[in-house]
This record gives sequence, structure tokens and C-alpha cells, in this order.
Amino acid sequence: MATAEEISANKQFGGWNRRYKHKSKSLGCDMTFTVYFPPAAASGKVPVLYFLSGLTCNDENFIIKSGAQRAAAARGVALVAPDTSPRGLGVEGEAESWDFGVGAGFYVNATQDKWKNWRMYEYVTEELPALLASAALGSPLDLGRASVFGHSMGGHGALVAGLRNPQKFRSISAFSPICNPCNAPWGVKAFTGYLGADRESWKAYDASELMKGFTGSSKPPVLVDTGSADKFLVEQLKPEALEAAANASGYPATVRLQEGYDHSYFFISSFVDEHIAFHADHLAK
Amino acid sequence: MATAEEISANKQFGGWNRRYKHKSKSLGCDMTFTVYFPPAAASGKVPVLYFLSGLTCNDENFIIKSGAQRAAAARGVALVAPDTSPRGLGVEGEAESWDFGVGAGFYVNATQDKWKNWRMYEYVTEELPALLASAALGSPLDLGRASVFGHSMGGHGALVAGLRNPQKFRSISAFSPICNPCNAPWGVKAFTGYLGADRESWKAYDASELMKGFTGSSKPPVLVDTGSADKFLVEQLKPEALEAAANASGYPATVRLQEGYDHSYFFISSFVDEHIAFHADHLAK
Repeated sequence: MATAEEISANKQFGGWNRRYKHKSKSLGCDMTFTVYFPPAAASGKVPVLYFLSGLTCNDENFIIKSGAQRAAAARGVALVAPDTSPRGLGVEGEAESWDFGVGAGFYVNATQDKWKNWRMYEYVTEELPALLASAALGSPLDLGRASVFGHSMGGHGALVAGLRNPQKFRSISAFSPICNPCNAPWGVKAFTGYLGADRESWKAYDASELMKGFTGSSKPPVLVDTGSADKFLVEQLKPEALEAAANASGYPATVRLQEGYDHSYFFISSFVDEHIAFHADHLAK
Repeated sequence: MATAEEISANKQFGGWNRRYKHKSKSLGCDMTFTVYFPPAAASGKVPVLYFLSGLTCNDENFIIKSGAQRAAAARGVALVAPDTSPRGLGVEGEAESWDFGVGAGFYVNATQDKWKNWRMYEYVTEELPALLASAALGSPLDLGRASVFGHSMGGHGALVAGLRNPQKFRSISAFSPICNPCNAPWGVKAFTGYLGADRESWKAYDASELMKGFTGSSKPPVLVDTGSADKFLVEQLKPEALEAAANASGYPATVRLQEGYDHSYFFISSFVDEHIAFHADHLAK
């Protein structure tokens, strides 16, 4: 049975932030992740909301800065925050860029040999849910009720994970996501490195491509918020591409621009209550 | 006229976190501080709630981690977060300890020549309010309505600032404060260094001493929360000393122990809404 070792615990809003370390088979290294258990987890099963973080983050940024635990406690939803890439493997050049390698897994399964351990897509959609289901820590978690959200690179990850696994995730949301990475410098750099030069292979990890061609019968609703003062808005994020894709396929997506907000956790914290309410409503069904 | 230069601005909950730099006369160096302006500051005057931070912190920890802006926005209160000591003076040994010198001003006016720039008491009770009143940034702030709170070393600072200036502060609260620094290792080290060996001189900076002997006619109400799992509780914080002092002089103080919480910002965030409501109620009078 897969296990995870608890490495810290902090009480917050009547529940607990618990940080774990485990040996990841997908990634070939030790990984940390944090789970916020709401007070309701002490006396029954609670649904799970995964949060995928952005470039340079690990599993702690969201837990420390978002203030999401307040609404998660009120709504009885567990938050699961994984790290953003393998770490400590010593791959040549892995820490040279802030937007590629360590802290920048882009939630893909790399096909290029050098980056073969970069399998964050498999990690967040398969290995981590299975670990949560099997490990002792998972006992209060109702893993059959799961949703996913994220920020920036992790917003991209959440959209891709959700759109490719509509049976696994009941709702999807994102703050400032990279909506069309095939056409954004961050995405082109990451996909070239992890997936190689064949641009067709990139489309499986592009939310706008996935949504445009979506044919599934189950369509987890999507909510996206981006700040109008986000310095990455035009070149990297491109929410208009996602909105166009939703219109093209009739996908249920709400894509909003929030006046004056930037790319920071100050923005996330301002709207995280709404996102948690959105997910909690769908998780309660 | 005293001025401060804005060095960053981030929108949050409809208001703005604005960080400033200015030349401090009290401390003899450049200082940074952050003000959260709630949405109501865009159209009228708002009262001011100072937050004094703990050991090792600067003006950003509270702003990034506490989640206090949410309630401050809702209640129309500005938050003012100063730094915790002079910085960059190059005093020999100033950065050797995490609990003395840089990041550890203890909100006293030092009397020992080597630490003559450590005048954080004067800075937070006089220079900073005067700066806020005179600088352009101060225009939406109603500095005649002010309250003060803080954490750990800053909880001590808030209690001392409030108890010594009952005309300046309408209410006082603290998370995990050092309640009786004359009898706690952190306090003894800091007071010996900044104030010298005469223990009588320390009492002016000890909340329990001040409250025990309080004779003023105006008594700003006090609210204190400390976590029962705080590893500093018994040796450093001693809330029981403050409670005894309140009982001795009939001071209106609510001193609570919160089951299972520790010394971290996870604890602060869990109760910050209650503290802001407490202050907002008194600031509205």
C-alpha cells in the first residue's frame, strides 16, 4: 500500500493543514504535498478539491497565501495542494530557468528522454488520487467527489486535467490560467522541451484546443478569472482563446476579467471564496 | 512635509495594498511599511488599524499571510503594517541573532548607546502616525480613529503602545503576545541589550506591569488570543500574567486560549476576522 509520511501539521479555521512526503513512482523522487482537512473531516467523509500551483511554486504557496482554508472549512471541502515538478533529480540544467525544469512541470507527461521524470500529468491525475485513496491519511476523503482548480501554469494544468478527465472531476476553475500554451512563449518553451518539436502532440495539453474539440457527454463546468492588470495577460494567458473555444463547441465556461487585479496571490485570495463556492456546489450534487 | 514613496501596489478585495518607503528620523534609516486601503477609502475617510509584527518579520508577512484584508475591506478599516526594526545601519552584531537587533526591535526606545537607532516605540506611536497624517497617502485616513494589534513580539508592542497611549488608540488586541517580557527569556535578552541592566526601566515596556498599575480614566478594551499548542506559550508568552494584571486593576481585558492552535499565521488567519470586528466596532463609535 502506498504511504505518505506526515511532516507537519498546523490547525487553521478548526481544521488542519497537514504536509506529507512520499516516494513518487511517476516522478522517481520524493515529493511533498499538503492537504487541508476541514473540520467536517473529523466526523465524516469530505469531497476533494485539488489546487495546482504556478511557476516557481511548491505545495506551500497556496496553503500559506490564498486564505482558501476559510471557505473550505465553511463548506466542508478538503484542499489538496501538490508540488509543481520533480525535485532533486540532478538533471543537467533542471534549475537554470524559472519557467522550465524544477518548479515548472507544466502538468505534462514528458516524452523527451532527458525529462522522462517530468510526468506531472500522471502524478496529479492518477498517482496522487490513488495515494490519497490508499494511504491512512485518505480515510476522511471521499475521492469519488473531486474537482480541480489552479493558478497560471496550474490553471492550465487544472483545465487540462479536468477537460481530459470529465468523469474524474465535477468542476474546473482557474485563476490567470495559460489558456492556449501552444501559442504562448511559456508554453512553447515548455512543450518543446518536454514534448519535442511535433506541435500536434502539444494539443493534448492545451485547454483551448481541448475545449474547442470537446465531444464528451459529461462537461464539467468551467470558471476562469483573470486580472485586467495582469502583466502576463496578453502574451501568455490569452483567456480570449479559451472563450472562443467554449463558444465554438458550446462548452459551459464562464471566463471573466477582473478589473485592476494582477497575477499575484492578492488576486487569488480576493476571488477564492467564489471559486470554492462554485466547486462546493458541484461537489454537493 | 514628510513624504513616502510608493514602491508597489496590489489590488485585493476591491481595495489596495500599497507599500511605501521613507526616510525615518526616529530610526535614522530608510524604512518600508504597507497600508491596505479598503474600498471605502476611495470615497471617504476610513479609520486606521496598526498591526505590529513579530520577530524576524518585516512589513510584508502580515499583508501576505494573514488574510486580514478581507474583513478590513468589509468593515471599511485601513490596515497599517510597519517593519520591526531599523535596517541597513551596519551596527556590529545587528544581524547575529534572530531575536535581537535587525527584525527584533521589541517596540522600545533603546537607551544603550550602541542601539540608539532602535526607537521603534517612538516610530510606531509618533513618527508613523504623523507621516500618515502629513503625506499625500494619508488623505483617506482618519488618524483620529486608530486602534492597534499585533503578533508575538508585535502583540507585546501593541499592548504597550495601547496601554501607554489610551487617548491615541481606541482598542487593543494581540495574537500570542509576549505578555510579561520582564520575566521571559526573549524580553530579558532584548531589554538588557536595548535598555541596560536597570530592571525598573523595563517596566514601561511590559504589558502586565502596565496593566497591573493602570490608573487612566480611558481604558481601551483589550482582546488577546493565544494557541494552546503554541510552543512558546509557557516560557515566553505567559498570558496568565496579563490576565492576573487585568484582574488586579479591573482592566477590561479578554484573554483567551484557543485549543490546538500554534504560533503561526495559520492561527492568526483563523481569528483575524474576530479581531478586526472587535476593532471596527470600537472605531465606529
